[in-house]
Amino acid sequence: MEVTRTLAHYIVQSKFSDIPQSVRHEAARAILNYCGCAIGSSRHETIDNLMRAILPISGAGQAGILGRKERLDISNAALINGVSAHVFDFDDTHVRAIHVSAPVLPALLAFGELHQVSGADLVHAFIVGVETECRVGLSVFPEHYMVGWHITGTAGIFGAAAAVGKLLGLNELQMTWALGIAATQSSGLREMFGSMCKSLHPGRAAQGGLVAALMAKQNFTSSESGIEAPRGFANVMSTKFDPEVITRPWGQSYELSSNMYKPFACGLVVHGAIDGCIQLRNEHALTPEQIDRVEIKVCPIVMELTAKQNPMSGLEGKFSVYHAAAVALVEGAAGEAQFSDSAVIDPQVIALRKRITAIPDPVLQRTQADVFIYLKTGAVLNRRVEHALGTLDRPMSDADLEGKFRALSTGILSDQKIDAVIELCWSIQDLSDVGQITRAASAD
Amino acid sequence: MEVTRTLAHYIVQSKFSDIPQSVRHEAARAILNYCGCAIGSSRHETIDNLMRAILPISGAGQAGILGRKERLDISNAALINGVSAHVFDFDDTHVRAIHVSAPVLPALLAFGELHQVSGADLVHAFIVGVETECRVGLSVFPEHYMVGWHITGTAGIFGAAAAVGKLLGLNELQMTWALGIAATQSSGLREMFGSMCKSLHPGRAAQGGLVAALMAKQNFTSSESGIEAPRGFANVMSTKFDPEVITRPWGQSYELSSNMYKPFACGLVVHGAIDGCIQLRNEHALTPEQIDRVEIKVCPIVMELTAKQNPMSGLEGKFSVYHAAAVALVEGAAGEAQFSDSAVIDPQVIALRKRITAIPDPVLQRTQADVFIYLKTGAVLNRRVEHALGTLDRPMSDADLEGKFRALSTGILSDQKIDAVIELCWSIQDLSDVGQITRAASAD
Repeated sequence: MEVTRTLAHYIVQSKFSDIPQSVRHEAARAILNYCGCAIGSSRHETIDNLMRAILPISGAGQAGILGRKERLDISNAALINGVSAHVFDFDDTHVRAIHVSAPVLPALLAFGELHQVSGADLVHAFIVGVETECRVGLSVFPEHYMVGWHITGTAGIFGAAAAVGKLLGLNELQMTWALGIAATQSSGLREMFGSMCKSLHPGRAAQGGLVAALMAKQNFTSSESGIEAPRGFANVMSTKFDPEVITRPWGQSYELSSNMYKPFACGLVVHGAIDGCIQLRNEHALTPEQIDRVEIKVCPIVMELTAKQNPMSGLEGKFSVYHAAAVALVEGAAGEAQFSDSAVIDPQVIALRKRITAIPDPVLQRTQADVFIYLKTGAVLNRRVEHALGTLDRPMSDADLEGKFRALSTGILSDQKIDAVIELCWSIQDLSDVGQITRAASAD
Repeated sequence: MEVTRTLAHYIVQSKFSDIPQSVRHEAARAILNYCGCAIGSSRHETIDNLMRAILPISGAGQAGILGRKERLDISNAALINGVSAHVFDFDDTHVRAIHVSAPVLPALLAFGELHQVSGADLVHAFIVGVETECRVGLSVFPEHYMVGWHITGTAGIFGAAAAVGKLLGLNELQMTWALGIAATQSSGLREMFGSMCKSLHPGRAAQGGLVAALMAKQNFTSSESGIEAPRGFANVMSTKFDPEVITRPWGQSYELSSNMYKPFACGLVVHGAIDGCIQLRNEHALTPEQIDRVEIKVCPIVMELTAKQNPMSGLEGKFSVYHAAAVALVEGAAGEAQFSDSAVIDPQVIALRKRITAIPDPVLQRTQADVFIYLKTGAVLNRRVEHALGTLDRPMSDADLEGKFRALSTGILSDQKIDAVIELCWSIQDLSDVGQITRAASAD
C-alpha cells in the first residue's frame, strides 16, 4: 500500500462542498481560539526573545504577527505565530494527542494574507491539514510519543505542508513530495518540556510545513514514500505504525470534530474542580466571605500532579488544585490572569486557599470532580462534575470561546479590534481575504 | 556527567592559539573544497528549484550565494549554500561518518559576511564546529545511522550551532541552550537518498544551527541536557550512546585532521580503480588507441555497487566501474564533467568501456585496486593501488584541491574570480573580513 501517495491523493481530491457545516464551524471556533492564545502570549518573554533573534534576519512586510506590530516574511511570521500559539499551553487539543491548530493555522494565515486567500479556501485547507496531521500522528501514537517525540511538532509539520499545499494547488506527485519534505524535517523532543523550546516545536512545524509546500510546488523532489518506507518517518521515529489509520477512507468523519478547547489555563486534571467551583459560585452569587470551607473530591492523579499547597509563582499556581479552586471561587474564572504571579499572592485568594481540602477518590475520572462548599450559614452546596467544561461531552460554547478570546486579548488589542476579530472569525467562510483577520489581530 | 554542559564548556573555552597550524591549514583546505562543490552545483536543478521557492520569502542582501548572483538573508543563504555543497556528493567526509563542512561553513560564511568576521575567527569557529558535530555524531554512531538517520544532517546542526555560537561569544549557559535548540530540531531521514532532499539535510542543518545560536544569544531557553537526557537527542534517536566520545578532553587532537576530500565525483569504492588508471595513463602518456583491454581487480563490494555495464545517464555512470575507468583513461580525470550525461555516451569512452573487465578479489579493501592494462604492443602495465588518492593515507595535495576547485568553478566564475577564491582560502587566517571569500565566489 502506498501510504504517502494515498494520503496525497486524498488531500488533492478533497472538496469543500463535501465538508459538513458543523465541521466548517468547528474550524471557525478553532481559529478564534488560536488567535486568542497567540495574542495573549504575544508580549511574553519567549516571543520577545525569539523576535529579537529573528527580526534582523527576516524578510519584511508579508504577514503580521498576532498581538504585535512587526510584519515579517511569511516563513518567519508562521514561526513566531506558531510559537506564541503554544506558549501558555492554552491552545486546542485533539481528544487523543495533538495540539492541532498551532502548527497549521500560522502557516495558512501567513500564506493567506500574502496571497489574499478566501475564507472558504482557508477553512477547507485547515480542515485538510488537521486531518493530515492527526492521521499521521495517530498512526504512530502512542508509541511515538512514548519514545520521546513531541507529537505536536513531529506530526504538525505534515499538517502545515498539506494545508499550504492544498492552497497552492499541488498535484498528487507534488503533494507526495511535500509530505516527504515534511517527513525528513519532522522533529521536536519531549525533553524540551519546561523550556521555551516546547513552544518552538509547533512554530517550526508551521514554518517547515509552509516551506515544504512551497518547495514541492517548484518540483523539489523527495522520496515518494516518506511516511511508510523502511527508513521513513514512521519506522525511524516510532516502534509502532498502523498505516490503516492514514489510508482509511477520507471524508466519512473529520478529526477536527474531536478538537477540544481549554476554558482554564492549566492542566486538564484540575478542570473538573474549577468547573464545579465556578458553577456553584455563579448560581449562588457566592462571595469568599460566605464560605467557611471547601472539600473537593478528585481523581487520585490530581493529587499526584497538582498538590502544591503554597504556590509562589503563577506557573506553580497551575500545579496547585488549591489555588485553582480558590481563584475560581474569588474571580469566577481561571484564565491566564488567574495564574499570574500576582494572582497567587492575592491575600483574598490565599485566605480562601487555606480553607480548601482535596480528597482523592478512585471512583472519579481525571476530568471529573465532586465539590462541596460549606457556608458559614451551615448550608452545604454540592456539584458533581461528570464532564468538565471543554471536554468533548461538554464543549465550550461559542460564547465561552468569545469570553476566552476577550480575556486573552484585552490590554493587548483595542476593544474595537477584539470585536472585529470575533466577527471575522464567525463569518470566515464569507471572507474574500483572510488577511483581514491577521490585520485585525495585530497591534497598531 | 553533564554531557551537553561539558561540551558547551569546551566550546566556550576553546582558544585559537591552542590549535596547531596543521589543523588550521586543514580548515583552509576544507573551505576551498567546500567552495568548489557549492559553486559547481550552483546552477543545478536542485538549486534552481529551491531558489524559486525561497527567493520570494527571503530577506535580501545580507549574504551571497556561491556561484550565483542572488543575495539573501543569512538564514536562507546558509540554507541554499548548504544544499549546493552536497548536491554532487563531492564534498568532504570525516573518515568515519559525517560530511563535516556542508552543515557548518554555509552558516559561518553567511554570518561572517554580514558581521565582517576575521578569517582567524572563522577558522577557529569552523574547527570548533567540526569537533562538535563529530563528537555528537560519533557518540551515537553507527547505530544512529543504521536506524535510518542521515547523520550529516542530524549531527551537523550541532556543529553549525556551536560554530556560530562561538562567533557570537555565547556564554556557557547560552551555548548549552544553543546545543539544546539544535538537538530538538535534529532531523534528516536516509529514506531521502536519491532525491533532492538528501542535499536539503546539510542545508537545513546549517540554517537551523545558525538560528539556534542567534536564539540562544537572546536567551531563548532549552533543556540543559538536550543531548544526554532520557528524552534527549541520543536516547530518542539512537539505540547506542557513548557520552565519553563527547566529554573526553578537548584539544588533544582534532577531528578535522581526519577529514577527507574526494578527487573523483563518484562513490569511494571506485576511487582505487580510477586512481590506478589515471596513474598509468599519465606515466605512460597512454591514448585509448594503444589499449587492447583492461583488467581491474577490485574489492567484491565494488561489483555489488557499481557493476552497471551500460550506463545511460551521468548518474548511472557513477555506478559503473567500467565507465569510471574508461573515462579516467580517456580524459585523465573523473570529476563532475566526466560523469555528465554526455560523457557516458561519448563513443570513445564507450568503445574503451567494452574492453574493460572487473574481477572481484576478496584480498582487496574497498578503496584498493589492482589495474592491468594490456597494450596492443603486447606489453602489460600494472599498478596496485594500496591507498586511493583522497584517503587519509594519501590525501589530496593542496595543488590537487586547487585543480578540483578549478574544474568545478570553470564556466561559472571568471578565471579572475577563481584565482581570487583560491588565494583568499590559502590566506584565510590573515583576512580581516571573510566576506571577501563569498563575494569572490559569487557570480557577477
